[in-house]
Amino acid sequence: MRQESPFETIKTKDASLPERTAEQISRLIVEQRLTSGDRLPSEFELAEMLQVGRGTVREGVKLLVARNVLEIRRGRGTYIASDPGVVEDPLGFAYYPDKFRLAMDLLEVRAQVEPWVARTAAERAGEADLRRLRETCAAVEQDILAERDHSVSDVRFHVAIAECTQNLVVPKLIPIITYAIRLFVTLTESRLKMETLVDHRELLEAICTQDGERAAAVMERHLDYNRALLEKLRAALAP
Amino acid sequence: MRQESPFETIKTKDASLPERTAEQISRLIVEQRLTSGDRLPSEFELAEMLQVGRGTVREGVKLLVARNVLEIRRGRGTYIASDPGVVEDPLGFAYYPDKFRLAMDLLEVRAQVEPWVARTAAERAGEADLRRLRETCAAVEQDILAERDHSVSDVRFHVAIAECTQNLVVPKLIPIITYAIRLFVTLTESRLKMETLVDHRELLEAICTQDGERAAAVMERHLDYNRALLEKLRAALAP
Repeated sequence: MRQESPFETIKTKDASLPERTAEQISRLIVEQRLTSGDRLPSEFELAEMLQVGRGTVREGVKLLVARNVLEIRRGRGTYIASDPGVVEDPLGFAYYPDKFRLAMDLLEVRAQVEPWVARTAAERAGEADLRRLRETCAAVEQDILAERDHSVSDVRFHVAIAECTQNLVVPKLIPIITYAIRLFVTLTESRLKMETLVDHRELLEAICTQDGERAAAVMERHLDYNRALLEKLRAALAP
Repeated sequence: MRQESPFETIKTKDASLPERTAEQISRLIVEQRLTSGDRLPSEFELAEMLQVGRGTVREGVKLLVARNVLEIRRGRGTYIASDPGVVEDPLGFAYYPDKFRLAMDLLEVRAQVEPWVARTAAERAGEADLRRLRETCAAVEQDILAERDHSVSDVRFHVAIAECTQNLVVPKLIPIITYAIRLFVTLTESRLKMETLVDHRELLEAICTQDGERAAAVMERHLDYNRALLEKLRAALAP
């Protein structure tokens, strides 16, 4: 199988020397199969291997830190990051001007993906998956009952459902398409909280009892309710 | 509506001064609604506004260039990038060791999303969308007939279908979930080319005639064929 070129991990148009060095380090990581937590060779070794100055290596490393490929542990060296190459907000949603439209379009995508995810989770979840699912469900409930912001734990619950599918890609997509939850939780305040508690509980139960049909149906209802509420809000806030 | 915090665009754990500066510049971009092609205030102005040294501003700008939020045009200044914040390979697929499994899992996701995308494209496409669709379809054909690598034009065709849906998010997701096309085109060599030509043509026709059912069915067949071929390859290459 063709070795995946790390030239594809960074835009290379008019690449500067540090950018090209970052690409070479990225290639090295792939070729040597370094994974999360592995230590990168030292600045000195990399400078030797890549035939560039140590300052250039340092610049290249900084670029890969900005891309969450590497992390610097102070006084201990440079390591491969957890989930290398996965960045926060990878589609730049923070820069979209119309957040309502973004939230509605995200809900449209979620409606296509998440009922299937819930159904597949019910069919494929293992014991460890179900344990994590119960824990993340409880964490959301605790946040809501303590009146804390539950946007982070809410996304974690949906990621935990995605992990039950055993598909490598789905848990990575969920934080992207649930981006709106962060906006939404503050927008809708407490109105959504009881429904969230009830829907999450029922989802958990459906998946734990391997009831795929019910899991998909509850997820659909959960997203429909979210959409209806968002539409009401948009109408209420319209000029 | 709550202003989206740019603190969410970059991981902030143990953030260094340049990282915090990058976040502040990112916040400025969102608050001032700067968009693609707009010019960033000068290093001097930013240093004044953020009360940091110009060297720190420069470091922060470099981080945002690495994240494709900004681009430096030599001798002309720093501008907001096109598609700000959208990076190549945002889920770090280049670092996955098992590319076959990745390709299969991506096909599973595509099978959930792309038939719906094709159907919705047929229902919502406007004249300009259809023009772009015909152009990108022709570009793939030209690449294939000239025996050039058609992986880039192939992704563009699928993105053009996604743009017909009028959903902001879908065209951004397509390059992620079609990541495997780049691996796949080299893997499968010419075996897939004729089928690709036929399927793409039929997709184009179905969308242009607003036949959503047919568009979805052709997309399903297209992905099924891809999956069957990938499975055969995996079996053939197994040790």
